[in-house]
Amino acid sequence: MSKTRAYLDWNATAPLGEAARRAMLDAYDLPGNASSVHGEGRAARAGIDRARRQVAALVGADPQHVTFTSGATEAANLVLTPAFRMGRAPLVIGHLYVSAIEHPALREGGRFGAGQVSEIAVTPQGVLDLAALAAALDVHDFASGLPMVAVMLVNNETGIIQPVAEAAALVHGKGGLLVVDAVQAVGRIPVDIAALDADFLIVSSHKIAGPKGVGALISRGEVMMPQPLIRGGGQEKGHRSGTENFPGILGFGAAAEAALADMETRNIAIGALRQRLEEGMRAAAADVIIHGACEQRVSNTTFFTLPGLKSETGQIAFDLEGIALSAGSACSSGKVGQSHVLAAMGCDADMGALRMSLGPLTTEAEIEKALAAFARISGRRKAAGQAA
Amino acid sequence: MSKTRAYLDWNATAPLGEAARRAMLDAYDLPGNASSVHGEGRAARAGIDRARRQVAALVGADPQHVTFTSGATEAANLVLTPAFRMGRAPLVIGHLYVSAIEHPALREGGRFGAGQVSEIAVTPQGVLDLAALAAALDVHDFASGLPMVAVMLVNNETGIIQPVAEAAALVHGKGGLLVVDAVQAVGRIPVDIAALDADFLIVSSHKIAGPKGVGALISRGEVMMPQPLIRGGGQEKGHRSGTENFPGILGFGAAAEAALADMETRNIAIGALRQRLEEGMRAAAADVIIHGACEQRVSNTTFFTLPGLKSETGQIAFDLEGIALSAGSACSSGKVGQSHVLAAMGCDADMGALRMSLGPLTTEAEIEKALAAFARISGRRKAAGQAA
Repeated sequence: MSKTRAYLDWNATAPLGEAARRAMLDAYDLPGNASSVHGEGRAARAGIDRARRQVAALVGADPQHVTFTSGATEAANLVLTPAFRMGRAPLVIGHLYVSAIEHPALREGGRFGAGQVSEIAVTPQGVLDLAALAAALDVHDFASGLPMVAVMLVNNETGIIQPVAEAAALVHGKGGLLVVDAVQAVGRIPVDIAALDADFLIVSSHKIAGPKGVGALISRGEVMMPQPLIRGGGQEKGHRSGTENFPGILGFGAAAEAALADMETRNIAIGALRQRLEEGMRAAAADVIIHGACEQRVSNTTFFTLPGLKSETGQIAFDLEGIALSAGSACSSGKVGQSHVLAAMGCDADMGALRMSLGPLTTEAEIEKALAAFARISGRRKAAGQAA
Repeated sequence: MSKTRAYLDWNATAPLGEAARRAMLDAYDLPGNASSVHGEGRAARAGIDRARRQVAALVGADPQHVTFTSGATEAANLVLTPAFRMGRAPLVIGHLYVSAIEHPALREGGRFGAGQVSEIAVTPQGVLDLAALAAALDVHDFASGLPMVAVMLVNNETGIIQPVAEAAALVHGKGGLLVVDAVQAVGRIPVDIAALDADFLIVSSHKIAGPKGVGALISRGEVMMPQPLIRGGGQEKGHRSGTENFPGILGFGAAAEAALADMETRNIAIGALRQRLEEGMRAAAADVIIHGACEQRVSNTTFFTLPGLKSETGQIAFDLEGIALSAGSACSSGKVGQSHVLAAMGCDADMGALRMSLGPLTTEAEIEKALAAFARISGRRKAAGQAA
């Protein structure tokens, strides 16, 4: 990446890390299809088995319960469905409850119909409203089937850690299923599927410096599973057909191992950079709002609003200054839309907010460059305000 | 790949080619998410747009009509659905007709229910029975919705080229939709979506020496499209959500361009090797059956039965001799199942058949090695037969 620019958009995607790159280059030299029975196929299969152990370790799961997909969005569409099975018997999920700050991959509701999805509010602080969840579950219509609840562990825009274990207690108290989007959590905080008491976790490779195009649905057990989304050759124990993305899966596995290796040290260092960033922002613009600053956040994310600066304008201004950041999540082909997270928090979604997200390769120089740009952009904003 | 082995399983997967490898290595150095609006994101987007043109050129399509997916199986599950739309209005497909020799990715029927899928027979020569297709369409129940027909252009096991344009005339005569699995055709024969008169083509990256984990659904137009299979951030014009697999897509594009570059010369050379292979097989075992040898085949595939040799036994014997080949298609986690293609042709599916498939890197030495192994395995078979 260009040294003259600062890449502060790690929550959108992380540059490919060295461990993943090496694993993929090795895999490229193997010709086999992992489903072939000849020697080449078996070598590919052994690599996939290793990656399954590495990805399972990321969340303390049984490797047998890792289903590789093409990414977190596919994993979400696989698990968010009314059509489950318990063993071989069909099991119907009647309604999906998603927190109002979920990623669009979950908010769209997967295979549930439009009338089968409800949103659960968050507090003005950006935290799931547990009372609202309990109230929704209290009036769930069990005649329609079981309730399913989707709550993310770490919000992608604010970085706020959500009360997943508390939600799990409520959901399981009603016999429901809990799906947890852990995409922004793994590699940043310890994640354990049993401690969270989640039935399903969703993880993504490219957010932890693995390759794009790979993710996984990780289940607590294997008795209750969704009907497959992609059918065909019966790979991944029938849960997900299609030739295994062998180099991609190996890269994901290597990235997962690297993400765990020195997680605490790494995130303390990232946190120190973020502290410098936020102190510098407050020093340059006393009126800057840092969303969720008083909540428990992962150490790499700063989601902020500069009053008087629209997020679209701000994003372009920072880009021209050589700073890659984001206005909310990256999706929908480059559209800059309103932040549903801000709206859910009751903030001025029209004004919007900007997100700087740091990673293990982020340097002090990048932070200083971002702060210099911040000061200039914030200053121009004041000048414009005075002229008006 | 080990020089002491011969890799003759190119129809299962091709080793990653140089063009794709270079494109992916370049892409790995770009940090951006192709849906981000900053400079890094726009650079990724430009790369994807180029790949879209390269993949469209493979089949003479409009780049705007290429929807990238995680592979051919996902593309099949996307398009094989009762739930279409015409513009914004819902459009119902009432029944799916698949040829009996389709790949499992299509035979499973995607999102159609079990009662909504019928098989169309093939002739004993392994060619789609057009009369059977016409008869099935004649009794289609239009009250249920439009008919959809899936016919592959080149069969993955036999290499036989199917009469797709003739099928298209029948399907369109009834106002139906034609889906063509062109996975084994592109790069081997000229493919033109208009000349075939197909409504949808399915292609895969890893079969043409691109990376695994990428494929595409290519449509003739954009008025009639399937409801999305994977919903979320709205990437790929809403047809397929999820962060774009940017390096994978660039690798696919580069592989597509390379596959077209010297296609005729390359396939003539491969055909000469196959001729040597088949002549050698017939010389070593006069009773060898080469399936579809009298039909129009692509130049790289030999699907054969050695009477008295079960395909499972044969595959292991060849593997021990250092020859990677396949018994039918590679799927279902290394299971060696019966060939549904052989069964559809009315052959002895219990005995099975073996497939050798060649590629642009296949050498004369590999063919001679395969023939030496063939002679030994065939000879042992005779000895066993005489002893019995």
